[in-house]
Amino acid sequence: MSLDGQYDDGNIFAKIVRGEMPCVQVFDASHTMGFMDVFPQSPGHMLVIHKTSKARNILEVEHEHLCQIMEAVQHLARAAKKALNPEGIVITQFNGATAGQTVFHLHFHIIPRYENTPPLAHTSGQMADMSELQKIADMIKKHI
Amino acid sequence: MSLDGQYDDGNIFAKIVRGEMPCVQVFDASHTMGFMDVFPQSPGHMLVIHKTSKARNILEVEHEHLCQIMEAVQHLARAAKKALNPEGIVITQFNGATAGQTVFHLHFHIIPRYENTPPLAHTSGQMADMSELQKIADMIKKHI
Repeated sequence: MSLDGQYDDGNIFAKIVRGEMPCVQVFDASHTMGFMDVFPQSPGHMLVIHKTSKARNILEVEHEHLCQIMEAVQHLARAAKKALNPEGIVITQFNGATAGQTVFHLHFHIIPRYENTPPLAHTSGQMADMSELQKIADMIKKHI
Repeated sequence: MSLDGQYDDGNIFAKIVRGEMPCVQVFDASHTMGFMDVFPQSPGHMLVIHKTSKARNILEVEHEHLCQIMEAVQHLARAAKKALNPEGIVITQFNGATAGQTVFHLHFHIIPRYENTPPLAHTSGQMADMSELQKIADMIKKHI
C-alpha cells in the first residue's frame, strides 16, 4: 500500500475530532488534541493529532500545522515524564500502511518506556481497560 | 538510565556538526542538517539534527528549533519518497537510553519502508558500506 491517496473524512481520528467517537482525552488545545492510545504499547501511550489539518501523513502536512503538532507532542511528553516518571520516551510517526500506519490522519505516538520492561512490540494487540486508561490520563492531565 | 543529565559537547553528532567527524551528508541548511545513518535499518535511513541546539532530547529543545528540525524532517522524507519510492516512511525519535537513544544530541530518524521486507529491528547492527551510503545519499540529494 503506497503513500499516495486521498484523505478520508470517515477515519476514526476525524470522528474523534468531531465528537462522533469517544476517546480518553488528555489535552485539548485550539489546533491540536492528545488522547490515550487504546492499544497501548506501554502505560501512558498517547496520540497527538491536528484538529483541522487534512494531512494523512508527514509528507502532506503544512509546516505551521506540523509545528503546532510538535508543540503538543513536546507538551505531552513533558507531562508524561512528570506524571509517570518513565526512564525513556519514544516518539514514532508512521506514514503508509507498509510503515505500520493504520489510521490515515497524521498522528504522533508518545510512548513512555520503563526500565526492566520488555522491548516494544509494534502494538500490544490488547485493548486497554478504559478505567485504567482514564486513571493514567488523569495523572498526566495534572501536569499539563 | 534516566532522562536527566547534561548535554555533552563531545557527542558524535556535535563532532559531525563541527566537522571533526565525517558523515555522508544529504542536507545542510542554516539551522539543521541531515545525513545517512551508518547503521541503517533500511536503505535510505537518515538522521536529522539541529546544528546549534544543545538539546539532548525532545523534552529540552526550544520550540523554534524543533520547528526547524521538523521542516528538515519533512523535506528529507519528501525527497526520500521521490528518490527511492518506498511504500512507507517511519519517523522515530528516542529520548533516554531506556528508549533506545545512543547519541545524546536530539535527532530524528527517517526510515523508508519497502513492501515485502522484514519488520524493522531496532538497529540492523551492521555498519553500512560507505560507498553504498554515498550512492543513496546522492539519489536523495537530487530531489532536495
